[in-house]
Amino acid sequence: MAPSVWRAFAKSKLPPLVLTPLQGLPWVQPGDDLPALLLAAILRQGLTLQDGDVVVLAQKIVSKAEGRYRLLSEVTPSLRAVELGAETEKDPRLVQLILDESNEVLRARPGLLIVEHRLGFVSANAGIDHSNLPGSAEDAYLLLPQDPDASASRVRSTLQQASGAQLGVLIIDSHGRAWREGTLGTTIGLSGLPGLVDLRGTPDLAGRPLRVTQLAAADELAAAASLAMGQAAEGCPAVHVRGFPYALREASLNELLRPRERDQFR
Amino acid sequence: MAPSVWRAFAKSKLPPLVLTPLQGLPWVQPGDDLPALLLAAILRQGLTLQDGDVVVLAQKIVSKAEGRYRLLSEVTPSLRAVELGAETEKDPRLVQLILDESNEVLRARPGLLIVEHRLGFVSANAGIDHSNLPGSAEDAYLLLPQDPDASASRVRSTLQQASGAQLGVLIIDSHGRAWREGTLGTTIGLSGLPGLVDLRGTPDLAGRPLRVTQLAAADELAAAASLAMGQAAEGCPAVHVRGFPYALREASLNELLRPRERDQFR
Repeated sequence: MAPSVWRAFAKSKLPPLVLTPLQGLPWVQPGDDLPALLLAAILRQGLTLQDGDVVVLAQKIVSKAEGRYRLLSEVTPSLRAVELGAETEKDPRLVQLILDESNEVLRARPGLLIVEHRLGFVSANAGIDHSNLPGSAEDAYLLLPQDPDASASRVRSTLQQASGAQLGVLIIDSHGRAWREGTLGTTIGLSGLPGLVDLRGTPDLAGRPLRVTQLAAADELAAAASLAMGQAAEGCPAVHVRGFPYALREASLNELLRPRERDQFR
Repeated sequence: MAPSVWRAFAKSKLPPLVLTPLQGLPWVQPGDDLPALLLAAILRQGLTLQDGDVVVLAQKIVSKAEGRYRLLSEVTPSLRAVELGAETEKDPRLVQLILDESNEVLRARPGLLIVEHRLGFVSANAGIDHSNLPGSAEDAYLLLPQDPDASASRVRSTLQQASGAQLGVLIIDSHGRAWREGTLGTTIGLSGLPGLVDLRGTPDLAGRPLRVTQLAAADELAAAASLAMGQAAEGCPAVHVRGFPYALREASLNELLRPRERDQFR
Protein backbone atom coordinates (compact mmCIF):
# COMPACT_ATOMS: atom_id res chain seq x y z
CA MET A 1 0.00 0.00 0.00
CA ALA A 2 1.33 3.42 -0.90
CA PRO A 3 2.66 5.58 1.98
CA SER A 4 -0.01 8.20 1.18
CA VAL A 5 -2.65 5.69 2.23
CA TRP A 6 -1.02 5.29 5.60
CA ARG A 7 -0.84 9.00 6.24
CA ALA A 8 -4.63 9.03 5.95
CA PHE A 9 -4.76 6.81 9.04
CA ALA A 10 -2.24 8.80 11.01
CA LYS A 11 -4.89 10.72 12.92
CA SER A 12 -6.21 7.56 14.57
CA LYS A 13 -4.27 6.12 17.48
CA LEU A 14 -5.10 2.52 16.68
CA PRO A 15 -4.10 1.79 13.08
CA PRO A 16 -6.42 -0.33 10.94
CA LEU A 17 -5.63 -3.99 10.43
CA VAL A 18 -5.21 -4.41 6.66
CA LEU A 19 -5.00 -7.87 5.09
CA THR A 20 -4.14 -7.87 1.38
CA PRO A 21 -4.32 -11.15 -0.56
CA LEU A 22 -1.19 -11.70 -2.66
CA GLN A 23 -2.33 -12.44 -6.16
CA GLY A 24 -0.71 -13.99 -9.15
CA LEU A 25 1.44 -16.54 -7.32
CA PRO A 26 2.24 -19.40 -9.69
CA TRP A 27 1.15 -23.00 -9.05
CA VAL A 28 3.84 -23.93 -6.52
CA GLN A 29 5.94 -27.00 -7.31
CA PRO A 30 8.45 -29.05 -5.31
CA GLY A 31 11.74 -27.20 -5.03
CA ASP A 32 10.26 -23.79 -5.84
CA ASP A 33 11.88 -20.84 -4.04
CA LEU A 34 8.83 -19.75 -2.05
CA PRO A 35 10.34 -16.59 -0.50
CA ALA A 36 11.36 -15.38 -3.99
CA LEU A 37 7.84 -16.01 -5.32
CA LEU A 38 6.39 -14.09 -2.37
CA LEU A 39 8.73 -11.14 -2.80
CA ALA A 40 7.84 -10.92 -6.49
CA ALA A 41 4.11 -10.97 -5.70
CA ILE A 42 4.54 -8.31 -2.99
CA LEU A 43 6.44 -6.02 -5.35
CA ARG A 44 4.09 -6.63 -8.28
CA GLN A 45 1.14 -5.63 -6.12
CA GLY A 46 2.77 -2.36 -5.08
CA LEU A 47 3.05 -3.46 -1.43
CA THR A 48 6.04 -2.95 0.84
CA LEU A 49 7.46 -4.84 3.82
CA GLN A 50 7.85 -2.64 6.89
CA ASP A 51 8.70 -3.32 10.53
CA GLY A 52 5.78 -5.13 12.17
CA ASP A 53 4.27 -6.53 8.96
CA VAL A 54 3.30 -10.21 8.89
CA VAL A 55 3.07 -12.55 5.88
CA VAL A 56 0.56 -15.39 6.24
CA LEU A 57 0.91 -18.53 4.12
CA ALA A 58 -1.61 -21.30 3.49
CA GLN A 59 -0.02 -24.62 4.48
CA LYS A 60 -0.56 -25.97 1.00
CA ILE A 61 2.01 -23.80 -0.78
CA VAL A 62 4.63 -24.49 1.90
CA SER A 63 4.06 -28.25 1.67
CA LYS A 64 4.14 -28.17 -2.12
CA ALA A 65 7.40 -26.21 -2.22
CA GLU A 66 8.84 -28.76 0.22
CA GLY A 67 7.65 -31.67 -1.93
CA ARG A 68 5.58 -33.29 0.83
CA TYR A 69 3.65 -35.46 -1.65
CA ARG A 70 2.95 -39.14 -1.07
CA LEU A 71 1.64 -41.63 -3.64
CA LEU A 72 -0.84 -44.23 -2.41
CA SER A 73 0.87 -46.85 -4.59
CA GLU A 74 3.95 -46.57 -2.38
CA VAL A 75 2.07 -47.17 0.88
CA THR A 76 1.59 -50.59 2.49
CA PRO A 77 -1.19 -50.37 5.08
CA SER A 78 -0.70 -52.03 8.46
CA LEU A 79 -3.38 -54.24 10.01
CA ARG A 80 -4.45 -51.28 12.17
CA ALA A 81 -4.79 -49.06 9.08
CA VAL A 82 -6.96 -51.71 7.40
CA GLU A 83 -9.21 -51.92 10.48
CA LEU A 84 -9.44 -48.13 10.82
CA GLY A 85 -10.07 -47.84 7.10
CA ALA A 86 -13.10 -50.11 7.44
CA GLU A 87 -14.29 -48.14 10.49
CA THR A 88 -13.93 -44.74 8.79
CA GLU A 89 -14.72 -45.86 5.20
CA LYS A 90 -11.37 -44.47 4.03
CA ASP A 91 -8.68 -46.07 1.84
CA PRO A 92 -6.44 -48.04 4.25
CA ARG A 93 -3.36 -46.61 2.53
CA LEU A 94 -4.56 -43.07 3.22
CA VAL A 95 -5.26 -44.12 6.82
CA GLN A 96 -1.66 -45.39 7.02
CA LEU A 97 -0.39 -41.97 5.85
CA ILE A 98 -2.56 -40.34 8.55
CA LEU A 99 -1.29 -42.75 11.26
CA ASP A 100 2.31 -42.10 10.21
CA GLU A 101 1.70 -38.37 10.81
CA SER A 102 -0.12 -38.81 14.14
CA ASN A 103 0.61 -39.38 17.81
CA GLU A 104 -2.81 -40.82 18.61
CA VAL A 105 -6.30 -41.43 17.20
CA LEU A 106 -8.93 -39.47 19.16
CA ARG A 107 -12.14 -40.29 17.23
CA ALA A 108 -12.92 -42.67 14.37
CA ARG A 109 -16.37 -42.81 12.78
CA PRO A 110 -17.56 -43.30 9.20
CA GLY A 111 -16.14 -40.35 7.26
CA LEU A 112 -14.31 -38.96 10.30
CA LEU A 113 -10.78 -39.55 11.61
CA ILE A 114 -9.62 -37.09 14.25
CA VAL A 115 -6.07 -37.43 15.54
CA GLU A 116 -3.44 -35.68 17.56
CA HIS A 117 -0.97 -34.72 14.85
CA ARG A 118 2.70 -35.46 15.57
CA LEU A 119 3.12 -31.65 15.83
CA GLY A 120 0.76 -31.75 18.84
CA PHE A 121 -2.50 -30.22 17.63
CA VAL A 122 -5.85 -31.94 17.17
CA SER A 123 -6.66 -32.33 13.51
CA ALA A 124 -8.95 -34.13 11.06
CA ASN A 125 -7.01 -36.58 8.83
CA ALA A 126 -3.69 -35.18 10.15
CA GLY A 127 -4.19 -32.29 7.72
CA ILE A 128 -3.50 -34.58 4.76
CA ASP A 129 -5.28 -33.53 1.59
CA HIS A 130 -5.68 -34.93 -1.88
CA SER A 131 -3.51 -32.92 -4.25
CA ASN A 132 -2.24 -33.35 -7.80
CA LEU A 133 1.47 -33.99 -8.09
CA PRO A 134 2.77 -32.25 -11.21
CA GLY A 135 3.92 -34.78 -13.83
CA SER A 136 2.09 -37.72 -12.24
CA ALA A 137 -1.28 -39.16 -13.22
CA GLU A 138 -1.42 -41.05 -9.92
CA ASP A 139 -3.42 -40.25 -6.80
CA ALA A 140 -1.21 -38.07 -4.62
CA TYR A 141 -1.68 -36.73 -1.12
CA LEU A 142 0.00 -33.73 0.45
CA LEU A 143 1.29 -33.92 4.05
CA LEU A 144 1.79 -30.90 6.29
CA PRO A 145 5.32 -29.42 6.31
CA GLN A 146 7.84 -31.50 8.27
CA ASP A 147 8.45 -28.63 10.74
CA PRO A 148 6.17 -25.63 10.07
CA ASP A 149 7.90 -23.40 12.65
CA ALA A 150 11.20 -24.00 10.82
CA SER A 151 9.52 -23.40 7.45
CA ALA A 152 8.13 -20.09 8.73
CA SER A 153 11.54 -19.16 10.09
CA ARG A 154 13.26 -19.83 6.75
CA VAL A 155 10.73 -17.75 4.79
CA ARG A 156 10.95 -14.97 7.36
CA SER A 157 14.74 -14.89 7.24
CA THR A 158 14.76 -14.35 3.47
CA LEU A 159 11.98 -11.74 3.54
CA GLN A 160 13.78 -9.87 6.33
CA GLN A 161 17.08 -9.91 4.46
CA ALA A 162 15.41 -8.61 1.31
CA SER A 163 13.44 -5.86 3.06
CA GLY A 164 15.57 -4.92 6.04
CA ALA A 165 12.37 -5.00 8.12
CA GLN A 166 11.44 -6.98 11.25
CA LEU A 167 8.64 -9.31 10.13
CA GLY A 168 6.48 -12.19 11.27
CA VAL A 169 5.57 -15.25 9.18
CA LEU A 170 2.55 -17.42 9.96
CA ILE A 171 1.58 -20.76 8.36
CA ILE A 172 -2.10 -21.68 8.60
CA ASP A 173 -4.46 -24.55 7.83
CA SER A 174 -8.24 -24.92 8.03
CA HIS A 175 -9.24 -26.67 11.28
CA GLY A 176 -12.59 -27.83 12.56
CA ARG A 177 -13.70 -27.04 16.12
CA ALA A 178 -15.02 -29.24 18.91
CA TRP A 179 -18.45 -27.68 19.34
CA ARG A 180 -19.08 -25.39 16.41
CA GLU A 181 -19.73 -25.93 12.71
CA GLY A 182 -17.40 -24.84 9.95
CA THR A 183 -13.65 -24.54 9.68
CA LEU A 184 -11.44 -21.73 10.89
CA GLY A 185 -8.01 -20.70 9.66
CA THR A 186 -5.65 -21.86 12.45
CA THR A 187 -1.91 -21.60 13.15
CA ILE A 188 0.27 -24.63 12.40
CA GLY A 189 3.61 -22.79 12.42
CA LEU A 190 4.96 -19.34 13.15
CA SER A 191 8.09 -17.28 13.38
CA GLY A 192 8.63 -13.80 14.76
CA LEU A 193 5.14 -13.05 16.07
CA PRO A 194 3.55 -14.00 19.40
CA GLY A 195 1.30 -17.06 19.55
CA LEU A 196 -0.29 -15.88 22.79
CA VAL A 197 -0.45 -12.37 24.16
CA ASP A 198 -0.51 -12.39 27.94
CA LEU A 199 -2.96 -9.81 29.27
CA ARG A 200 -2.77 -11.01 32.88
CA GLY A 201 -2.31 -8.03 35.09
CA THR A 202 -3.31 -5.51 32.42
CA PRO A 203 -6.03 -3.41 34.02
CA ASP A 204 -9.16 -2.53 32.08
CA LEU A 205 -10.41 1.06 31.85
CA ALA A 206 -11.96 0.75 35.31
CA GLY A 207 -8.63 -0.41 36.73
CA ARG A 208 -9.72 -4.04 37.28
CA PRO A 209 -7.74 -6.99 35.97
CA LEU A 210 -9.12 -8.18 32.63
CA ARG A 211 -11.15 -11.39 32.55
CA VAL A 212 -9.44 -12.46 29.34
CA THR A 213 -5.97 -13.39 30.41
CA GLN A 214 -4.35 -14.91 27.35
CA LEU A 215 -5.34 -13.93 23.86
CA ALA A 216 -4.52 -16.32 20.99
CA ALA A 217 -3.21 -13.50 18.81
CA ALA A 218 -1.63 -15.75 16.15
CA ASP A 219 -4.81 -17.81 15.81
CA GLU A 220 -6.89 -14.64 15.53
CA LEU A 221 -4.59 -13.54 12.72
CA ALA A 222 -4.79 -17.02 11.14
CA ALA A 223 -8.59 -16.76 11.02
CA ALA A 224 -8.41 -13.20 9.68
CA ALA A 225 -6.00 -14.22 6.91
CA SER A 226 -8.10 -17.25 6.00
CA LEU A 227 -11.07 -14.88 5.61
CA ALA A 228 -9.01 -12.52 3.44
CA MET A 229 -7.92 -15.44 1.22
CA GLY A 230 -11.61 -15.89 0.49
CA GLN A 231 -13.07 -18.80 -1.37
CA ALA A 232 -10.15 -19.05 -3.73
CA ALA A 233 -7.83 -20.49 -1.09
CA GLU A 234 -5.95 -22.48 -3.73
CA GLY A 235 -5.59 -19.45 -5.94
CA CYS A 236 -4.62 -16.90 -3.32
CA PRO A 237 -2.71 -18.73 -0.61
CA ALA A 238 -0.74 -15.81 0.87
CA VAL A 239 -1.73 -12.60 2.64
CA HIS A 240 0.20 -9.44 3.50
CA VAL A 241 -0.76 -8.02 6.91
CA ARG A 242 -0.19 -4.49 8.15
CA GLY A 243 -1.37 -3.24 11.52
CA PHE A 244 -0.88 -6.40 13.64
CA PRO A 245 -1.41 -4.71 17.01
CA TYR A 246 1.12 -6.59 19.17
CA ALA A 247 4.89 -6.39 19.42
CA LEU A 248 6.71 -8.99 17.33
CA ARG A 249 8.84 -11.52 19.21
CA GLU A 250 10.25 -15.04 18.81
CA ALA A 251 7.68 -17.78 19.41
CA SER A 252 6.80 -21.35 18.53
CA LEU A 253 3.62 -23.31 17.87
CA ASN A 254 3.89 -24.99 21.27
CA GLU A 255 2.66 -21.97 23.18
CA LEU A 256 -0.72 -22.32 21.42
CA LEU A 257 -1.16 -26.01 22.30
CA ARG A 258 -2.84 -26.95 25.58
CA PRO A 259 -0.82 -29.51 27.52
CA ARG A 260 -2.68 -32.81 27.64
CA GLU A 261 -2.91 -32.75 31.44
CA ARG A 262 -4.88 -29.49 31.27
CA ASP A 263 -7.10 -30.64 28.38
CA GLN A 264 -10.65 -31.34 29.61
CA PHE A 265 -12.11 -32.37 26.25
CA ARG A 266 -10.37 -35.37 24.69
CA MET B 1 -11.79 5.43 4.56
CA ALA B 2 -11.76 8.05 1.79
CA PRO B 3 -12.83 6.89 -1.70
CA SER B 4 -9.36 7.80 -3.00
CA VAL B 5 -7.94 5.05 -0.81
CA TRP B 6 -10.18 2.51 -2.43
CA ARG B 7 -9.23 3.52 -5.95
CA ALA B 8 -5.66 2.57 -5.07
CA PHE B 9 -6.87 -1.02 -4.60
CA ALA B 10 -8.90 -1.12 -7.81
CA LYS B 11 -6.20 -2.88 -9.78
CA SER B 12 -6.39 -5.97 -7.58
CA LYS B 13 -9.24 -8.42 -8.14
CA LEU B 14 -9.52 -9.41 -4.49
CA PRO B 15 -9.95 -6.29 -2.35
CA PRO B 16 -8.06 -6.07 0.94
CA LEU B 17 -9.88 -6.83 4.16
CA VAL B 18 -9.66 -3.64 6.23
CA LEU B 19 -10.67 -3.61 9.91
CA THR B 20 -10.72 -0.16 11.51
CA PRO B 21 -11.24 0.13 15.28
CA LEU B 22 -13.90 2.74 16.12
CA GLN B 23 -12.38 5.06 18.62
CA GLY B 24 -13.78 7.55 21.07
CA LEU B 25 -16.95 5.65 21.95
CA PRO B 26 -18.16 6.79 25.37
CA TRP B 27 -18.43 4.44 28.37
CA VAL B 28 -21.75 2.79 27.42
CA GLN B 29 -24.52 2.94 30.04
CA PRO B 30 -27.90 1.21 30.34
CA GLY B 31 -30.40 2.78 27.97
CA ASP B 32 -27.76 4.36 25.71
CA ASP B 33 -28.66 4.51 22.02
CA LEU B 34 -25.88 2.25 20.75
CA PRO B 35 -26.55 2.68 17.00
CA ALA B 36 -26.43 6.47 17.40
CA LEU B 37 -23.10 6.22 19.28
CA LEU B 38 -21.71 3.98 16.52
CA LEU B 39 -22.85 6.32 13.72
CA ALA B 40 -21.22 9.28 15.47
CA ALA B 41 -17.95 7.36 15.88
CA ILE B 42 -18.01 6.24 12.24
CA LEU B 43 -18.55 9.80 11.00
CA ARG B 44 -16.00 11.30 13.39
CA GLN B 45 -13.38 8.88 12.09
CA GLY B 46 -14.02 9.82 8.46
CA LEU B 47 -15.36 6.35 7.61
CA THR B 48 -18.43 5.59 5.52
CA LEU B 49 -20.95 2.74 5.44
CA GLN B 50 -21.21 1.10 2.01
CA ASP B 51 -22.96 -2.01 0.70
CA GLY B 52 -21.17 -5.07 2.05
CA ASP B 53 -19.58 -3.37 5.07
CA VAL B 54 -19.86 -5.09 8.46
CA VAL B 55 -19.80 -3.53 11.93
CA VAL B 56 -18.48 -5.80 14.69
CA LEU B 57 -19.40 -5.12 18.33
CA ALA B 58 -17.84 -6.51 21.49
CA GLN B 59 -20.59 -8.17 23.56
CA LYS B 60 -19.84 -5.91 26.48
CA ILE B 61 -21.15 -2.68 24.95
CA VAL B 62 -24.33 -4.38 23.75
CA SER B 63 -24.99 -5.88 27.18
CA LYS B 64 -24.27 -2.58 28.91
CA ALA B 65 -26.62 -0.65 26.63
CA GLU B 66 -29.26 -3.29 27.37
CA GLY B 67 -28.68 -3.00 31.12
CA ARG B 68 -27.84 -6.69 31.61
CA TYR B 69 -26.26 -6.05 35.03
CA ARG B 70 -26.92 -8.25 38.05
CA LEU B 71 -26.02 -7.46 41.66
CA LEU B 72 -24.80 -10.37 43.79
CA SER B 73 -26.80 -8.99 46.74
CA GLU B 74 -30.00 -9.76 44.84
CA VAL B 75 -29.10 -13.42 44.18
CA THR B 76 -30.08 -16.32 46.43
CA PRO B 77 -27.97 -19.36 45.54
CA SER B 78 -29.62 -22.75 45.26
CA LEU B 79 -28.17 -25.83 46.95
CA ARG B 80 -26.67 -26.87 43.61
CA ALA B 81 -25.02 -23.44 43.24
CA VAL B 82 -23.54 -23.75 46.74
CA GLU B 83 -22.13 -27.20 45.89
CA LEU B 84 -20.75 -26.07 42.53
CA GLY B 85 -19.35 -22.95 44.19
CA ALA B 86 -17.35 -25.16 46.57
CA GLU B 87 -16.22 -27.35 43.66
CA THR B 88 -15.11 -24.42 41.49
CA GLU B 89 -14.02 -22.06 44.30
CA LYS B 90 -16.43 -19.40 43.00
CA ASP B 91 -19.00 -17.29 44.87
CA PRO B 92 -22.20 -19.42 44.98
CA ARG B 93 -24.23 -16.36 43.99
CA LEU B 94 -22.12 -15.94 40.84
CA VAL B 95 -22.52 -19.67 40.18
CA GLN B 96 -26.29 -19.18 40.46
CA LEU B 97 -26.14 -16.41 37.84
CA ILE B 98 -24.15 -18.76 35.59
CA LEU B 99 -26.62 -21.63 36.10
CA ASP B 100 -29.55 -19.31 35.34
CA GLU B 101 -27.92 -18.53 31.97
CA SER B 102 -27.01 -22.14 31.13
CA ASN B 103 -28.62 -25.28 29.74
CA GLU B 104 -26.08 -27.65 31.27
CA VAL B 105 -22.78 -27.83 33.14
CA LEU B 106 -20.10 -29.59 31.04
CA ARG B 107 -17.01 -29.30 33.30
CA ALA B 108 -16.49 -28.05 36.85
CA ARG B 109 -13.04 -27.86 38.41
CA PRO B 110 -11.36 -25.38 40.78
CA GLY B 111 -11.35 -22.08 38.89
CA LEU B 112 -13.18 -23.55 35.88
CA LEU B 113 -16.90 -23.75 35.08
CA ILE B 114 -17.71 -24.65 31.47
CA VAL B 115 -21.36 -24.72 30.46
CA GLU B 116 -23.62 -24.91 27.48
CA HIS B 117 -25.06 -21.39 27.45
CA ARG B 118 -28.83 -21.11 27.03
CA LEU B 119 -28.05 -19.68 23.56
CA GLY B 120 -26.50 -23.06 22.66
CA PHE B 121 -22.75 -22.47 22.59
CA VAL B 122 -20.11 -23.87 24.94
CA SER B 123 -18.76 -21.14 27.18
CA ALA B 124 -16.73 -20.51 30.33
CA ASN B 125 -18.88 -18.96 33.11
CA ALA B 126 -21.76 -18.44 30.63
CA GLY B 127 -19.88 -15.37 29.40
CA ILE B 128 -20.66 -13.52 32.63
CA ASP B 129 -18.05 -10.96 33.60
CA HIS B 130 -17.42 -8.68 36.52
CA SER B 131 -18.31 -5.14 35.49
CA ASN B 132 -18.91 -1.88 37.29
CA LEU B 133 -22.49 -0.67 37.26
CA PRO B 134 -22.49 3.11 36.97
CA GLY B 135 -23.85 4.72 40.14
CA SER B 136 -23.43 1.59 42.28
CA ALA B 137 -20.63 0.75 44.69
CA GLU B 138 -21.73 -2.86 44.76
CA ASP B 139 -20.24 -5.87 42.98
CA ALA B 140 -22.02 -6.14 39.65
CA TYR B 141 -21.85 -8.75 36.91
CA LEU B 142 -22.76 -8.36 33.27
CA LEU B 143 -24.72 -11.09 31.48
CA LEU B 144 -24.66 -11.64 27.72
CA PRO B 145 -27.45 -9.92 25.75
CA GLN B 146 -30.84 -11.63 26.09
CA ASP B 147 -30.98 -12.38 22.34
CA PRO B 148 -27.77 -11.34 20.54
CA ASP B 149 -29.16 -12.09 17.05
CA ALA B 150 -32.03 -9.70 17.79
CA SER B 151 -29.61 -7.11 19.22
CA ALA B 152 -27.50 -7.34 16.04
CA SER B 153 -30.62 -7.02 13.92
CA ARG B 154 -31.77 -3.86 15.74
CA VAL B 155 -28.36 -2.18 15.40
CA ARG B 156 -28.18 -3.19 11.74
CA SER B 157 -31.62 -1.83 10.98
CA THR B 158 -30.72 1.62 12.32
CA LEU B 159 -27.31 1.69 10.60
CA GLN B 160 -28.92 0.65 7.31
CA GLN B 161 -31.62 3.31 7.57
CA ALA B 162 -29.01 5.97 8.30
CA SER B 163 -26.65 4.94 5.49
CA GLY B 164 -28.91 3.45 2.84
CA ALA B 165 -26.40 0.59 2.56
CA GLN B 166 -26.82 -3.18 2.96
CA LEU B 167 -24.75 -4.05 6.03
CA GLY B 168 -23.91 -6.89 8.39
CA VAL B 169 -23.65 -6.63 12.19
CA LEU B 170 -21.72 -9.15 14.28
CA ILE B 171 -21.59 -9.42 18.09
CA ILE B 172 -18.53 -11.21 19.49
CA ASP B 173 -17.13 -12.45 22.78
CA SER B 174 -13.79 -14.01 23.76
CA HIS B 175 -14.08 -17.82 23.91
CA GLY B 176 -11.63 -20.48 24.96
CA ARG B 177 -11.04 -23.55 22.82
CA ALA B 178 -11.09 -27.25 23.63
CA TRP B 179 -7.51 -28.13 22.77
CA ARG B 180 -5.61 -24.91 22.34
CA GLU B 181 -4.45 -22.16 24.68
CA GLY B 182 -5.71 -18.61 24.59
CA THR B 183 -9.02 -17.03 23.71
CA LEU B 184 -10.38 -16.23 20.29
CA GLY B 185 -12.97 -13.64 19.31
CA THR B 186 -16.08 -15.74 18.51
CA THR B 187 -19.59 -15.00 17.22
CA ILE B 188 -22.45 -14.87 19.74
CA GLY B 189 -24.95 -13.06 17.50
CA LEU B 190 -25.20 -11.87 13.92
CA SER B 191 -27.49 -10.21 11.42
CA GLY B 192 -27.13 -9.81 7.68
CA LEU B 193 -23.92 -11.78 7.11
CA PRO B 194 -23.43 -15.53 6.65
CA GLY B 195 -22.36 -17.62 9.64
CA LEU B 196 -21.15 -20.43 7.40
CA VAL B 197 -20.14 -20.27 3.77
CA ASP B 198 -20.83 -23.54 1.98
CA LEU B 199 -18.00 -24.44 -0.36
CA ARG B 200 -19.27 -27.94 -1.10
CA GLY B 201 -19.17 -28.52 -4.82
CA THR B 202 -16.88 -25.56 -5.48
CA PRO B 203 -14.00 -26.99 -7.50
CA ASP B 204 -10.43 -25.99 -6.71
CA LEU B 205 -8.06 -24.79 -9.42
CA ALA B 206 -7.42 -28.37 -10.50
CA GLY B 207 -11.15 -28.99 -10.87
CA ARG B 208 -11.41 -31.23 -7.78
CA PRO B 209 -13.97 -30.65 -5.03
CA LEU B 210 -12.44 -28.69 -2.15
CA ARG B 211 -11.60 -30.56 1.05
CA VAL B 212 -12.88 -27.66 3.16
CA THR B 213 -16.62 -27.81 2.75
CA GLN B 214 -18.00 -25.29 5.20
CA LEU B 215 -16.07 -22.24 6.23
CA ALA B 216 -17.03 -20.47 9.47
CA ALA B 217 -16.89 -17.03 7.85
CA ALA B 218 -18.56 -15.15 10.72
CA ASP B 219 -16.21 -16.71 13.29
CA GLU B 220 -13.21 -15.87 11.10
CA LEU B 221 -14.42 -12.28 11.05
CA ALA B 222 -15.04 -12.39 14.81
CA ALA B 223 -11.42 -13.42 15.40
CA ALA B 224 -10.16 -10.78 12.97
CA ALA B 225 -12.17 -8.04 14.67
CA SER B 226 -11.04 -9.15 18.12
CA LEU B 227 -7.46 -8.84 16.88
CA ALA B 228 -8.15 -5.36 15.48
CA MET B 229 -9.65 -4.28 18.82
CA GLY B 230 -6.26 -5.05 20.28
CA GLN B 231 -5.48 -5.08 23.95
CA ALA B 232 -7.82 -2.21 24.68
CA ALA B 233 -10.95 -4.31 24.23
CA GLU B 234 -12.81 -2.21 26.80
CA GLY B 235 -11.70 1.01 25.19
CA CYS B 236 -12.29 0.11 21.57
CA PRO B 237 -15.19 -2.31 21.47
CA ALA B 238 -16.35 -1.78 17.87
CA VAL B 239 -14.73 -2.34 14.48
CA HIS B 240 -15.67 -1.18 10.98
CA VAL B 241 -14.99 -3.84 8.32
CA ARG B 242 -14.62 -3.32 4.59
CA GLY B 243 -13.81 -6.10 2.15
CA PHE B 244 -15.70 -9.01 3.76
CA PRO B 245 -15.34 -11.39 0.81
CA TYR B 246 -18.72 -13.16 0.89
CA ALA B 247 -22.20 -12.06 -0.15
CA LEU B 248 -24.30 -10.72 2.72
CA ARG B 249 -27.48 -12.65 3.58
CA GLU B 250 -29.82 -13.25 6.50
CA ALA B 251 -28.47 -15.72 9.07
CA SER B 252 -28.65 -16.67 12.74
CA LEU B 253 -26.21 -17.93 15.35
CA ASN B 254 -27.69 -21.42 15.13
CA GLU B 255 -25.94 -22.25 11.87
CA LEU B 256 -22.59 -21.98 13.66
CA LEU B 257 -23.53 -24.36 16.49
CA ARG B 258 -22.94 -28.09 16.06
CA PRO B 259 -26.02 -30.13 16.92
CA ARG B 260 -25.40 -32.15 20.07
CA GLU B 261 -25.92 -35.46 18.28
CA ARG B 262 -23.01 -34.67 15.94
CA ASP B 263 -20.76 -33.37 18.75
CA GLN B 264 -17.95 -35.85 19.47
CA PHE B 265 -16.26 -33.86 22.21
CA ARG B 266 -18.52 -33.17 25.22
